[in-house]
Amino acid sequence: MGLENCQADFPVLERLIDGQRVTYLDSAATSLKPRSVIDAMSNFYSQNGVNIHRGKYYLSEEASDSYERVRYSIAQYLGAYGNEIVFTKGTTESLNLVAYGLGLQQDDIVVGFLDSHHAQLLPWRRAANLKLVNLNSDGGIDLDHYHELLKLKPKVVVLTHCSNVSGNIAPIEEMTIAAKEACDAIVVVDAAQSMPHPHLRIDVSKIDVDFVAFSAHKMLGPTGVGCLYGKSSRLNELRPLMLGGGMVDWVDTEGSQERKIPHRFEAGTPAIASTLGFGEAINYLKRFGEKKSLEHTEELTEAIIKGAMERDYIQLLGTKSTENRCAIGSLRIKNCDDLSDIARSLSDSYGIMCRTGHMCAQPIVDEQMGDEVLRISAYIYNTTEEIERFYQSLDELVSFLGLV
Amino acid sequence: MGLENCQADFPVLERLIDGQRVTYLDSAATSLKPRSVIDAMSNFYSQNGVNIHRGKYYLSEEASDSYERVRYSIAQYLGAYGNEIVFTKGTTESLNLVAYGLGLQQDDIVVGFLDSHHAQLLPWRRAANLKLVNLNSDGGIDLDHYHELLKLKPKVVVLTHCSNVSGNIAPIEEMTIAAKEACDAIVVVDAAQSMPHPHLRIDVSKIDVDFVAFSAHKMLGPTGVGCLYGKSSRLNELRPLMLGGGMVDWVDTEGSQERKIPHRFEAGTPAIASTLGFGEAINYLKRFGEKKSLEHTEELTEAIIKGAMERDYIQLLGTKSTENRCAIGSLRIKNCDDLSDIARSLSDSYGIMCRTGHMCAQPIVDEQMGDEVLRISAYIYNTTEEIERFYQSLDELVSFLGLV
Repeated sequence: MGLENCQADFPVLERLIDGQRVTYLDSAATSLKPRSVIDAMSNFYSQNGVNIHRGKYYLSEEASDSYERVRYSIAQYLGAYGNEIVFTKGTTESLNLVAYGLGLQQDDIVVGFLDSHHAQLLPWRRAANLKLVNLNSDGGIDLDHYHELLKLKPKVVVLTHCSNVSGNIAPIEEMTIAAKEACDAIVVVDAAQSMPHPHLRIDVSKIDVDFVAFSAHKMLGPTGVGCLYGKSSRLNELRPLMLGGGMVDWVDTEGSQERKIPHRFEAGTPAIASTLGFGEAINYLKRFGEKKSLEHTEELTEAIIKGAMERDYIQLLGTKSTENRCAIGSLRIKNCDDLSDIARSLSDSYGIMCRTGHMCAQPIVDEQMGDEVLRISAYIYNTTEEIERFYQSLDELVSFLGLV
Repeated sequence: MGLENCQADFPVLERLIDGQRVTYLDSAATSLKPRSVIDAMSNFYSQNGVNIHRGKYYLSEEASDSYERVRYSIAQYLGAYGNEIVFTKGTTESLNLVAYGLGLQQDDIVVGFLDSHHAQLLPWRRAANLKLVNLNSDGGIDLDHYHELLKLKPKVVVLTHCSNVSGNIAPIEEMTIAAKEACDAIVVVDAAQSMPHPHLRIDVSKIDVDFVAFSAHKMLGPTGVGCLYGKSSRLNELRPLMLGGGMVDWVDTEGSQERKIPHRFEAGTPAIASTLGFGEAINYLKRFGEKKSLEHTEELTEAIIKGAMERDYIQLLGTKSTENRCAIGSLRIKNCDDLSDIARSLSDSYGIMCRTGHMCAQPIVDEQMGDEVLRISAYIYNTTEEIERFYQSLDELVSFLGLV
């Protein structure tokens, strides 16, 4: 699968806006969807569309089979068992489910990180006493501080595999070993930004994490469905966040009996078609492969770093090495106090779509950059030429606006 | 829109299984989806597919506008304000959000009903002291018992507008007035089975309910998205079930500030495409209209009751009047202890898809029927001929099996 062919798989890239093709540089927010994923969903609705796990009739069993096949496909992708895969509506629900479900007390210590996404920060702060590990000046994790906080014997350590702001890839294997050695802490990984990349896939048969959360929509799948991997022993002890149909064996006027894992976490009708789309997305990523994923990410990351380093007017957050970094660049621009104006001009004059703000991870943005950033993030359908075009367009804009 | 035309809008009804067309009689579990709904979703993914509320760029603003238009369209459909519409993944999440979010104490009294769906039963039982109103022998609500329980001055009354087992339509206007007069109770309506029918649409500007929960997938829309209507004064006091990105104004290392309603209940990336599908479903139902919805429901309901009454071997749950009843029939068959065998034969030999079990509402099924039921449920694309064909096929089957 060459990259040009890869772009052809994404119909929105053929769209012209004001006569211009789209340069999409916001994949850390959500990825575009290939045709195979879109077709899997509309085919399901056109040829079936009924509920799962509900009926002993042909269409329902067909739907249930397709749905459960995705569960096993994801399990296989992670080196997990099928009953360790819980479908949620996304990373946010997955993390909230764990933060609620562990039944922590307000004074239990949880160790998190200053580069956490709000979805990995707020639920833990509500559930327990959250201590944040500092970052060093290049946005990486201050591992000394991490080891110091582990001395507090936290019940839970909540890792972010890849920061959606700095692109930093945390050494989760080493950090998990440390957490287990220090206090046998439960390790919960936000893998929303890493799982989209086959070379960063977490193999839970090799890394002793307890929970991993991720979303379909950042890895070529649809919005509204995601996953929580949980070690079966942990899932067995986790309280469901939501109760309802499909998660109980029986109910009477006095009580009820919950079903086994993973079903007792899946109350109500799930996002069936979207789950089938998720399955197709995994298939697509498997075909793309780990080697190509790594090479392509390194090329894009290098282009992002190089473009920023060549320009005095740009301040780039994070390490300037392509190692342990994803193709995400969060920038500040000299003399510019309204980055959203820049983003709008990039969009309307150049067809380049990128984001401004705090990236739902305000602590790292405030600490490292002092204010909102302009973020570009690239994925498997992007090319280094697109990154270069972004910087050239930015040159024109800042010059036109008299900022430099 | 004639009914034949209406069937033509649903592509799955053209599907042949073993040479037979599909007779779908499980709409109380989920409805089929018309082409316009399917197209709305795949068009979004093909032409856009990006995240909402995140970026100041063309595609993101286009997506956000489409998404918010659905919110206002649903608000208008219910006689509500836009900020009173919260998107969830379905009725189950909506009800769990309210049961959690009200911050009830374990000894607070909540009045529910024996015909509640598990999603309206289990979250309240977990949150508080749930008392259930009895049913009378035809599956309707024992209003005397309801008034008696109101004397306990419950904090919350949780109504089921239409039972998914008996098809009974509760007099929610009268019951809401009684709850308010007795103790100003918060009234929460599970409208999953009623909202699909335009003639049962709840107008919150006329009925003083506090919360209404429903799902897109039972009303021609996709799975994985639903709605919670909440009076703005109530939503302002409700705790979010999930925390994360998009629901806060700011976050720092010590605290955070939640956004206004409805956004503080919508942490994380929502089911964007599915929400657009939901919007198309509402448009379709508006075109179908209240008058036709009422007439057609009455015809289908009459056919369900008539077919059961004409056969000695069938016991039908619920009132035998078409008044205040939806086109749902839950049956027991004389001398038959394995209804799932019947359902399978109806599916495989006749192409008729219907459901067996406890319908995620075990208390009413156990009390009224003693054991699992076979349920048929019909919707706007069904005809009375299909109901008749169901009964004729059942005649053949029970005769073939020697049950009668």
